[in-house]
Amino acid sequence: MRIAILGGTGDIGEGLALRLAADTSHTVVVGSRNESKAADSADSYESRLTNHDIERAIEYADNTTATIDADVVVLAIPPHHVSDVINTLVEQEVLADQVLITPAVGMRGDGAGLHYDPPSTGSITELVAKRAPDSTTVVGAFHNLAADRLADLDADLGVDTLVVADDEEVRQRVIDLGNELTGIRALSAGPLANATEVESVTPLVINIARYNDGMHDVGVKFS
Amino acid sequence: MRIAILGGTGDIGEGLALRLAADTSHTVVVGSRNESKAADSADSYESRLTNHDIERAIEYADNTTATIDADVVVLAIPPHHVSDVINTLVEQEVLADQVLITPAVGMRGDGAGLHYDPPSTGSITELVAKRAPDSTTVVGAFHNLAADRLADLDADLGVDTLVVADDEEVRQRVIDLGNELTGIRALSAGPLANATEVESVTPLVINIARYNDGMHDVGVKFS
Repeated sequence: MRIAILGGTGDIGEGLALRLAADTSHTVVVGSRNESKAADSADSYESRLTNHDIERAIEYADNTTATIDADVVVLAIPPHHVSDVINTLVEQEVLADQVLITPAVGMRGDGAGLHYDPPSTGSITELVAKRAPDSTTVVGAFHNLAADRLADLDADLGVDTLVVADDEEVRQRVIDLGNELTGIRALSAGPLANATEVESVTPLVINIARYNDGMHDVGVKFS
Repeated sequence: MRIAILGGTGDIGEGLALRLAADTSHTVVVGSRNESKAADSADSYESRLTNHDIERAIEYADNTTATIDADVVVLAIPPHHVSDVINTLVEQEVLADQVLITPAVGMRGDGAGLHYDPPSTGSITELVAKRAPDSTTVVGAFHNLAADRLADLDADLGVDTLVVADDEEVRQRVIDLGNELTGIRALSAGPLANATEVESVTPLVINIARYNDGMHDVGVKFS
């Protein structure tokens, strides 16, 4: 598969690009609004993989070009940009039959910690699904992974990621993709209507990291 | 400590009473609206403990009496009864300097799964804190434990429970109490303002149990 990571220069994008390149044989394309930024990141990721004795080419493109010929598009962009990016992709008519994966979570902070702060549609995953064309299958996945830990190829993960999608066959394909990543177990959390419960784990793990010694970059596991 | 479990005849109350009696030396009091129901449950719990070679007396009382002389009161009651029970305890003036633990979670279901459905105050934990007298310290804990698994003394737990409270010293005392239970690790999730993120894990684990083979009664672990 050809996997485009829009916002592939950002924190969660970096980790996903590195892990997908390290652990799978899929083509990885780093996308960015700015093609030269994408090129710089792809170059740096290749070097880091080489340092781990992994020789892998990482492709790059601007977000639009990256989307056009991808099988899977990951919206690895900050939550407050998701709406703009999906609207732009729709206007540019570059979304067709791709699988569109969204890991973004809306949060707000106060003195106590971080709190789940979804858009009025209920979840970012459902917002993306509402905006994307019917031919594109929207999947929520990779929400609750600590970016630094994901991007550290020496770090053992041992965490779960939850996958929501209305199309069961596509949901299973993304679960299979998640399970290709070493140390990640992908589980189904059902249809998109269950995305809220999945997204809201992200502020929780950040709060747990804050309030418990030695739990920096903590992930979640179900057992 | 003297621990009263209001609703100690119900599903989560049953598990907490059994585990507290089996794993700690605290006095366990089963509370119920109906004293004779409480007596029947206490008797049955003692028999089950005896079957596991644990000789422990379980006390019983109606909810009001159980509350009066307890150090810790657990509101192990269904979410839709929490408001009535706390209002009654306040009217009866039986809440003083107890630690009041609430494990209840408001949920609603649809075809896709269960969804977090908190009261308008933000979380059941915060609702209880708003209603309880200032002298009573409210703590959210034991939300995400599968009742059947908790009540099965042969079941290995290996799960985490999250504790929220504004009073740090009391929060730590409840964390210590949780850690006395074999197979449970209690973690801090910070002040009561973070209760929403803790409570909303409960519908998520139920959805995961539904959508993944072999994950019946699943719990959560952070690592």
